[in-house]
Amino acid sequence: MIYFNNAATSWPKPDIVYQAADEFFRSSGINPGRSGTSGEQDAAQIIFETREKIADFFSISNSAQLVFNSGSTESLNTVIKGVLEKGDHVITSKLEHNSVLRPLERLKTEKEITVDYIEFNPKTAEIEYQSLKNAVKNNTKLIIISHASNVLGTVNNLQRIGEIAAAEDILFLVDAAQTAGVIPIDVDKMKIDFLAVPGHKSLFGPPGIGALYVRDHELIRPLKEGGTGTNSLSVQQPKIMPDYLEAGTLNTPGIIGLGAGIEFIQTEGLKLIHQQEMRLLKKLINGLKILPEIKIYGKKDIDNRTAVTAFNLAALSSNQLAFKLQHEYNIQLRGGLHCAPLLHKFLGTDNQGMLRLSPGYFNTEAEVDEFLNILETII
Amino acid sequence: MIYFNNAATSWPKPDIVYQAADEFFRSSGINPGRSGTSGEQDAAQIIFETREKIADFFSISNSAQLVFNSGSTESLNTVIKGVLEKGDHVITSKLEHNSVLRPLERLKTEKEITVDYIEFNPKTAEIEYQSLKNAVKNNTKLIIISHASNVLGTVNNLQRIGEIAAAEDILFLVDAAQTAGVIPIDVDKMKIDFLAVPGHKSLFGPPGIGALYVRDHELIRPLKEGGTGTNSLSVQQPKIMPDYLEAGTLNTPGIIGLGAGIEFIQTEGLKLIHQQEMRLLKKLINGLKILPEIKIYGKKDIDNRTAVTAFNLAALSSNQLAFKLQHEYNIQLRGGLHCAPLLHKFLGTDNQGMLRLSPGYFNTEAEVDEFLNILETII
Repeated sequence: MIYFNNAATSWPKPDIVYQAADEFFRSSGINPGRSGTSGEQDAAQIIFETREKIADFFSISNSAQLVFNSGSTESLNTVIKGVLEKGDHVITSKLEHNSVLRPLERLKTEKEITVDYIEFNPKTAEIEYQSLKNAVKNNTKLIIISHASNVLGTVNNLQRIGEIAAAEDILFLVDAAQTAGVIPIDVDKMKIDFLAVPGHKSLFGPPGIGALYVRDHELIRPLKEGGTGTNSLSVQQPKIMPDYLEAGTLNTPGIIGLGAGIEFIQTEGLKLIHQQEMRLLKKLINGLKILPEIKIYGKKDIDNRTAVTAFNLAALSSNQLAFKLQHEYNIQLRGGLHCAPLLHKFLGTDNQGMLRLSPGYFNTEAEVDEFLNILETII
Repeated sequence: MIYFNNAATSWPKPDIVYQAADEFFRSSGINPGRSGTSGEQDAAQIIFETREKIADFFSISNSAQLVFNSGSTESLNTVIKGVLEKGDHVITSKLEHNSVLRPLERLKTEKEITVDYIEFNPKTAEIEYQSLKNAVKNNTKLIIISHASNVLGTVNNLQRIGEIAAAEDILFLVDAAQTAGVIPIDVDKMKIDFLAVPGHKSLFGPPGIGALYVRDHELIRPLKEGGTGTNSLSVQQPKIMPDYLEAGTLNTPGIIGLGAGIEFIQTEGLKLIHQQEMRLLKKLINGLKILPEIKIYGKKDIDNRTAVTAFNLAALSSNQLAFKLQHEYNIQLRGGLHCAPLLHKFLGTDNQGMLRLSPGYFNTEAEVDEFLNILETII
């Protein structure tokens, strides 16, 4: 099997991730450890240290402002539903995932918000920064941009957008689903107010864990209220972070697995991981470019991007070709629409979809060659 | 260490739970398995089979009406926020957990809902069924009752409440946090519209996984919209279950672990597990009863209850005693308020709190003896 679907979820994970999640799961109720202290406190200490480590990874100075949840979708919903009020205006882009579009579309009806979907440059595939700036209105409350497109791999210039947002006193929510772990993110430098981080992609954590950075929790209502173990006598959600946005029992093995993933990245080096992925991507794109009737979407160079590329073969249904590659050759890649409907409508691929290839750190050049050979034989 | 905190989370888990979660996590991206089918499809098939198994456990005929999420808190928030409209009336009880109380208190302000908190009988610790019936108003939309109190272990008669709800055409949401896995639940017989199921308690699954049964998804809005892999071209959340209420990447190792937990229960026998826990509880209560200055809350018999009992020693702070037992004797139990503020106010223990003991299937009679001996020496 060749696994080229790392933009959906990274696989395999580094072995320390499996080990750390399993060990913590087995011991988390207990953990006798240090002289006489109770298991619960030891577990809490480990979670605290992991929170510090992850916060530090994104240059978040106060780790209490980083909350754990089930993933990016929850983070995005938390911010969109927790920040927007009746009549607010939102600026986002046509690159966005359904986890941004669908909550917004719901609030259009329920809270009469308005939304501008900024276009992107089809060649560079970056959003049109000037259009974004021009779209600002008096009632613009929130700008939501994905750091990188999950279909085209383009990396948007967050600092540039953050500066526009800050200058206009607009909150800035970043969907880091495709970049957290391979492209450096600094919440202060990039003037990010909310950062949605998935655990199971380039951070090598388990599925079902994610994190959300919140610069000022006074600006947001929780998506979920419930038990926090603090202020239990109060029927109001306590406004103490991280508890305020972390009601209920956390996915502790997931948190520990995520921490181990970040440790792996720090040991290998984020830059080295990214370079290796880019080497594989370059080889893939160069191979695709010389095949007949292949159309590659977005830009063809590897500067300023993640290890994702999308293509089609003539007018063939992307789902059909993906099915053939999966079932006859055991190549894991994705056909179809990739949860980004506005991108497909903008590029005219809403019927055909696209084949998406997303190599990861554990793929090899030999796998790229094998894939290209297979593709050559069947087209 | 003696672990008497199973009402918070069960520990240890059966070994097959650790194994199943770890194995699926390691293989879920791949899973070559059956001739030529792709890994993703194999994984989807395993998730489907697990969903069927869990649905069957609660006599849910259509497993698509059972959705996976991060736990009971998410389930309760999903229903409370997804069902209630401006001006609705809700009936719940003073036994409830903050994961019910806090979302309701928020909606009191935001949606001007009204809430009646039914009292419970301090002797039997069951809710006052007649009061519940009397509280019904024209605008009563939802009844929310926990199957068992997380502090007193009382099991409420769901069928009786379900019949009141059905007769008045009121939706019935059950918080099964303390019973799923040890007391049989039949959603049809008990006329339950929404069942909130935690994974990590008596079902022996990992923390961070839970499930929600929804009889009619047309009556509920999702808590989270996002990618579903279905109808990707639509920016509206597709109304197909389970996708409608399962946006984003699921905690698949958690689901598999939960499935293994249920398999363990079915192999051992739910009734036998419950009987074993009741044997331990009876021994605990009998031991506590003869100690001086111990006050046991709720009823003292073991009929119709879960393996939870709460007590205090004279007027001593429950947190202080719990701390001493934890740190000097390595006994895991809970002091304080247990996220049930109205219960404590009703019983007058909002300052003192209570010590809660919740033995589990893997505890032994020797541990009960040891605990009682320790308690005797320090009081």
